[in-house]
Amino acid sequence: MLFNQQLKERQQMVNVRLSELLDSANIPNVIYEPMKYSVDAGGKRIRPILTLSITEALGGDLKDALDFGCAIEFIHTYSLIHDDLPAMDNDDFRRGKLTNHKVYGEAIAILAGDALLNFAFEVLSQKLEENNNPLYVKAVKEIVKASGSRGMVAGQAIDIKSENKQLKLEELYNMHRLKTGAIIEAACVAAAYISNREESVEIIRDFSRHLGIAFQIVDDILDFIGDEKKLGKTVGKDKEANKATYVTILGIDEAKKRAQEHSKISIKIANDIDKSGFLSKLTEYLLFRDN
Amino acid sequence: MLFNQQLKERQQMVNVRLSELLDSANIPNVIYEPMKYSVDAGGKRIRPILTLSITEALGGDLKDALDFGCAIEFIHTYSLIHDDLPAMDNDDFRRGKLTNHKVYGEAIAILAGDALLNFAFEVLSQKLEENNNPLYVKAVKEIVKASGSRGMVAGQAIDIKSENKQLKLEELYNMHRLKTGAIIEAACVAAAYISNREESVEIIRDFSRHLGIAFQIVDDILDFIGDEKKLGKTVGKDKEANKATYVTILGIDEAKKRAQEHSKISIKIANDIDKSGFLSKLTEYLLFRDN
Repeated sequence: MLFNQQLKERQQMVNVRLSELLDSANIPNVIYEPMKYSVDAGGKRIRPILTLSITEALGGDLKDALDFGCAIEFIHTYSLIHDDLPAMDNDDFRRGKLTNHKVYGEAIAILAGDALLNFAFEVLSQKLEENNNPLYVKAVKEIVKASGSRGMVAGQAIDIKSENKQLKLEELYNMHRLKTGAIIEAACVAAAYISNREESVEIIRDFSRHLGIAFQIVDDILDFIGDEKKLGKTVGKDKEANKATYVTILGIDEAKKRAQEHSKISIKIANDIDKSGFLSKLTEYLLFRDN
Repeated sequence: MLFNQQLKERQQMVNVRLSELLDSANIPNVIYEPMKYSVDAGGKRIRPILTLSITEALGGDLKDALDFGCAIEFIHTYSLIHDDLPAMDNDDFRRGKLTNHKVYGEAIAILAGDALLNFAFEVLSQKLEENNNPLYVKAVKEIVKASGSRGMVAGQAIDIKSENKQLKLEELYNMHRLKTGAIIEAACVAAAYISNREESVEIIRDFSRHLGIAFQIVDDILDFIGDEKKLGKTVGKDKEANKATYVTILGIDEAKKRAQEHSKISIKIANDIDKSGFLSKLTEYLLFRDN
């Protein structure tokens, strides 16, 4: 099967399960609607597809991997809603659609974000009830650590405090490791635990860290040179906000070079882990994208 | 020992543990500080003290109960930070101190709330790692369901959508059951699971529901007749926002009567559950308070 077709099938699988989980939870409409709006706004579903694909490569339970991946996607979606708020990045559009607060107002958008973060934990605790497996608890711990004050939220706070500051490379690196890297890492490492392959945790952590760094550098490059229409969001916002990026610190050529170096390492590990080739193609797809 | 002294000791126990949990987690300062600020802003620590006291009455592990209670207090604290935001209730003061966003700005306040919600789940998943007990998973599920889109967050969303609307009694009741009742219920019911006393879940649920309703009616009465200084927050805000309350719907006398009826039932159950008498005194204290 062609990679693009496989990818599409997995995205479809994730989309169906995200809807099933949300729709079956009996959530009052006043908060269900804004939650659903942002979940349906789409995106590439990279995080759950990483969880799924690594679990498949390691021979774990795909049904469980899908639910763990969906929980991570709910966390990712909540973070986008809060990031877009007027008090934060103040974005009117996300993936070509109006942002949550532009449709539902700020108060409901804040609550929809809260609800999605919480819902992720509802999904995860459901998995723990179904499977009395200590490694599943470790997978949950990995995810909650990555999304909170020692992970994504810390990264967002550092990001906000860094506007109009001349960050050093290590500071920028640390900020992104927390803001976007930690949850990508958790999506990958959780797969090792779900697959009862604790011995594979460190190699997969390594894979995910190089992937995360490369992914962020590519993001900065795309923001610098990208095409507004293709990305479906306002580009050049980094420059506008006078934010340090890999491009402003390293220059465009050096940024491209480093993205390639990290990409190479993660693709090499992907090939070792997944003999089917899907994971390395996915990695290539993420790192040589134009949106 | 006098009740007041016992209560103070338990509040102290909760405060010490809240600090231990936060301080030992290695949270970057940029987000640790605003989290700590609101956790330290105090309050009566009702929810963790309920978890503790019921666990003690049922003979469960008090150390574990304390951590579950602290997780619930972190959830409660996050909800106050987000509730106080300009887009929500727009409060400048809480418990006599400036609200989180007045000190740290809106963006960091949103993130501090997110971080506290997340941190609660970090504490809970740590307990699950330490204790491979299916009833502990049930306690966690009870808490996450109560705090999210089928509990507190739904209640807050309904509350926001109800401003300037003439709510009926059942609608008001439903809103409060979700907004404040669910998490009080979870604080109590979790204690039954932690104590390995699944057979006690329903009687404790009953206790907590009557307590929750009475507590909310008393809150509305206090807001109506209360003294601004004693409460440490702006009173009469309900009237100002043209919000339906038990007092505006029932009138002050009927509201007082109903508070007493629900109080009586919960105090009776408290006496049955807890022979030491602490739980019934705590219930009386909560329902015959002036702040």
